[in-house]
Amino acid sequence: MKKNLAQAGLRPEPVRGIRTGTMTSYEKLEARFRQRNRLKDLLDISSWDESVVMPKGSGEARANAMAELGTVLQNLICAPEVGDWIHESEVSTGSLNAWQKANLSEIKKIYVENTAVPVELNQRLMVANMRCQQAWREMRAANNWRGFLPLLQESLNLSRQALQELSQQTKLPIYDTALTIYANGLTTAIVEKLFGELKAFLPAMIPQIVENQKRETVLIPDGKFPMAAQKALALELMQLIGFDMDHGRLDESHHPFCGGNATDVRITTRYSEKEFVSALMGVLHETGHALYEQNRPQEWLEQPVGNSCGMAIHESQSLLHEMQVVRSREFLEFAAPLIRKHMGQFVSNPKSLEVDNLVKLVTRVQPGYIRTEADEVTYPSHVILRFEIERDLLEDRWPLSELPTVWNQKMKEYLGLSTLGNDKDGCMQDVHWPSGSWGYFPAYTFGAVIAAQLFAKASGARPTLGSEISRGDFKGLQGWLRENIWSQGSLMNTLQLVEKASGPLSSAAFKKHIERRYT
Amino acid sequence: MKKNLAQAGLRPEPVRGIRTGTMTSYEKLEARFRQRNRLKDLLDISSWDESVVMPKGSGEARANAMAELGTVLQNLICAPEVGDWIHESEVSTGSLNAWQKANLSEIKKIYVENTAVPVELNQRLMVANMRCQQAWREMRAANNWRGFLPLLQESLNLSRQALQELSQQTKLPIYDTALTIYANGLTTAIVEKLFGELKAFLPAMIPQIVENQKRETVLIPDGKFPMAAQKALALELMQLIGFDMDHGRLDESHHPFCGGNATDVRITTRYSEKEFVSALMGVLHETGHALYEQNRPQEWLEQPVGNSCGMAIHESQSLLHEMQVVRSREFLEFAAPLIRKHMGQFVSNPKSLEVDNLVKLVTRVQPGYIRTEADEVTYPSHVILRFEIERDLLEDRWPLSELPTVWNQKMKEYLGLSTLGNDKDGCMQDVHWPSGSWGYFPAYTFGAVIAAQLFAKASGARPTLGSEISRGDFKGLQGWLRENIWSQGSLMNTLQLVEKASGPLSSAAFKKHIERRYT
Repeated sequence: MKKNLAQAGLRPEPVRGIRTGTMTSYEKLEARFRQRNRLKDLLDISSWDESVVMPKGSGEARANAMAELGTVLQNLICAPEVGDWIHESEVSTGSLNAWQKANLSEIKKIYVENTAVPVELNQRLMVANMRCQQAWREMRAANNWRGFLPLLQESLNLSRQALQELSQQTKLPIYDTALTIYANGLTTAIVEKLFGELKAFLPAMIPQIVENQKRETVLIPDGKFPMAAQKALALELMQLIGFDMDHGRLDESHHPFCGGNATDVRITTRYSEKEFVSALMGVLHETGHALYEQNRPQEWLEQPVGNSCGMAIHESQSLLHEMQVVRSREFLEFAAPLIRKHMGQFVSNPKSLEVDNLVKLVTRVQPGYIRTEADEVTYPSHVILRFEIERDLLEDRWPLSELPTVWNQKMKEYLGLSTLGNDKDGCMQDVHWPSGSWGYFPAYTFGAVIAAQLFAKASGARPTLGSEISRGDFKGLQGWLRENIWSQGSLMNTLQLVEKASGPLSSAAFKKHIERRYT
Repeated sequence: MKKNLAQAGLRPEPVRGIRTGTMTSYEKLEARFRQRNRLKDLLDISSWDESVVMPKGSGEARANAMAELGTVLQNLICAPEVGDWIHESEVSTGSLNAWQKANLSEIKKIYVENTAVPVELNQRLMVANMRCQQAWREMRAANNWRGFLPLLQESLNLSRQALQELSQQTKLPIYDTALTIYANGLTTAIVEKLFGELKAFLPAMIPQIVENQKRETVLIPDGKFPMAAQKALALELMQLIGFDMDHGRLDESHHPFCGGNATDVRITTRYSEKEFVSALMGVLHETGHALYEQNRPQEWLEQPVGNSCGMAIHESQSLLHEMQVVRSREFLEFAAPLIRKHMGQFVSNPKSLEVDNLVKLVTRVQPGYIRTEADEVTYPSHVILRFEIERDLLEDRWPLSELPTVWNQKMKEYLGLSTLGNDKDGCMQDVHWPSGSWGYFPAYTFGAVIAAQLFAKASGARPTLGSEISRGDFKGLQGWLRENIWSQGSLMNTLQLVEKASGPLSSAAFKKHIERRYT
């Protein structure tokens, strides 16, 4: 123990009032959001710590501490002067360059999302979401839809009210407003169009693929796989793909996530000794997220415009790596020797680690109840049904009590499965709605479709890409991604960014990818 | 990646203005310092993270983020309204109970220490300390006193100025003011008296002990001790002693420390495969600090009065465990089988792990240059010479350029060693002065003396204590410590706390302890 003089008093840091005298309103905004960004980094690290290393007895104190810092962050960006600075900056944007203008626009988006909802309503929403999410953990396990319904109803009602308040500012319909929170640029019409294209071919294609795959023989790698060996394999592959260990870590947590910030990306996973493929795919998926974060534009790292361009693009980077790269034959030709190096000694059927078998293993298609366990062919159906339902619910088209019925209908239609009486594997399976994240789901499938289109474009621009990947050389691909996506921050919205990089977004590349890989 | 609706906007936490309408000024102070305490917890966790797990590329971003949160903390407690609330509370203390009164007094101490120094001077001091500490790392290694002198001079000059400003508030002489920062209640006169008592017997006793120990045979445990085995031993012993793993952790870092907070104490250590005793003693020393933190008064955990009673008492708890308990024959009778269980298979000379040898091993006395490597008999001399020097320097009794000469003189007088031309192992060895922690050193030896007196008192009150310890039963000792020290927070100052628990502080118990163990 050692207490420093400066810690004890004799201030550790001069009291820095932001010297507002000589700064423009826009500069004041940058200073304020830089401050917010730095404090948010510590909140993110505290959150990682809570999930990965915190001893269990400190939960309540940590929750209080994080809520306190959350309040500080809120107060920083909701202060009335921030609204004034935005207004003043908007009337004289002539002096701002394109990045600054986009930054101002991102700042305004954050400010509006944080101030549009009256404090009292927001507080009720918070409490309702928290109650609903806590109840969900137990009631899902107990398959208790009746008990869950009133809690979800309360949370939905308040979310709807809050989104209506926000809609008055965004001048958008309620579901468009919800979409915009997670992926700026998406609208209900755009989602309906793209999902309509997917519905035109996927539901019919799935049974054919399943039928074809019945004729294949796939060996499941069988053995007891020590966690240390799995971690060594994951670390070796993620670094070969480009993860920078000077700016990130890989750890274990109960619920895997990718946290931290651009200079310190924290991936977590959970290993099972019975099976190593899922955790490995999970780590390499998160590596895609991490590469995007680690390669954000350096000069804008502390400003909103330097952040990733929303969740659809973020998901496109993880899925581009997981689905387009890692599950490809080319990548597995490169990775198979490494997999054998780390796992070979533990597997009872060595043939299961040969390239041909690995390819089959990571491209199996099987309709199932659970979204998070779905393959890339059936996954969009899970998302489309959720989109159609949450759109209807926010627009109040039918009562929430009908959710299990509607869910069952759509599951039968899109995936041929019934969830009647099995709500825990049906409409109660996800944390999104109980936690109030209405409007999030479409980002997953937009991510998959964008990933396919970006990868197709990069492959077209670089004919050697496939052979590079089979040699474990990812520089070409990543150079393209850096130039077209990673370096662009939030300069454009989701669709503009995709279009500038690869043309207008459509389902064509995704369809072609599925056909080529599975039919 | 998943972004929550509430994260995106629709506020995660209502904007909590402190509702000042119905609160008394004292209650407003409690609310403010509770807020500060919670944010400080996150700063401490961020600091642990930086030392233990942060990837190296994130250093600059982390420094910026921590400075930002430091500023928020500063602004919270330096705000003018805090001064008003203190003043208002002081004129109507009649309604406050003893804990509240002591809390008000601690709050005032923190407020004064944080506001007494003008912002501009404090800023210059900060910069000077940082420069001096950075230069120290290289210049110490290079034994470069001449290069170091001007930097230390600047830091000393500004520290002196800052302490003079603070002295105007404390109404105490400058060195008393410095002492008070780290251990409230200590004065120059009190330190001189106690250290005078120690000087009266230690310098003469040391050569006798060394001479006596020459006749002993001590076996150094020889082998290669894997870190995992050392950690398992440390974890088992620290938990048996009472460390609560639900409220703390043990990890590795380059510079060992004890951080975190009462609900989450983070001990770190550094293992060497060549030798396991040092790291083990280090962990058990920090366990003493941790027990004090984990057992602070629950109802005052978030208020200044619930904090530990300064650094002398804190050190007394680590030294009570390390010196009075762990290095005793009784404890080693209990611990030897555990040490053999974990280390026996790695040691080439098994006799070295027998109780008799372990006792000799952990009670060797040998004058040396380096304070942090000193045994408990020679340690006070290191502290006394530093005290005499820093007192003189703050009072400007002789020029800083004479420091190597004075240091050498005192080392010869107290420990019989010359540091002429060897400043890196002399006056440049500690980080305290380069970092501006003038007035800290006496706390170490007050801690040792207090530890001896408290342990003697507890032993007197509980005649079975020795046999309890030899059975690994620490409940009796810790019940006494909880009642007399741990539960008392900062209700009293250093000397009042000691006196209430064990009578007026003197060197008698320490002298008796040294005589009994070493002569």
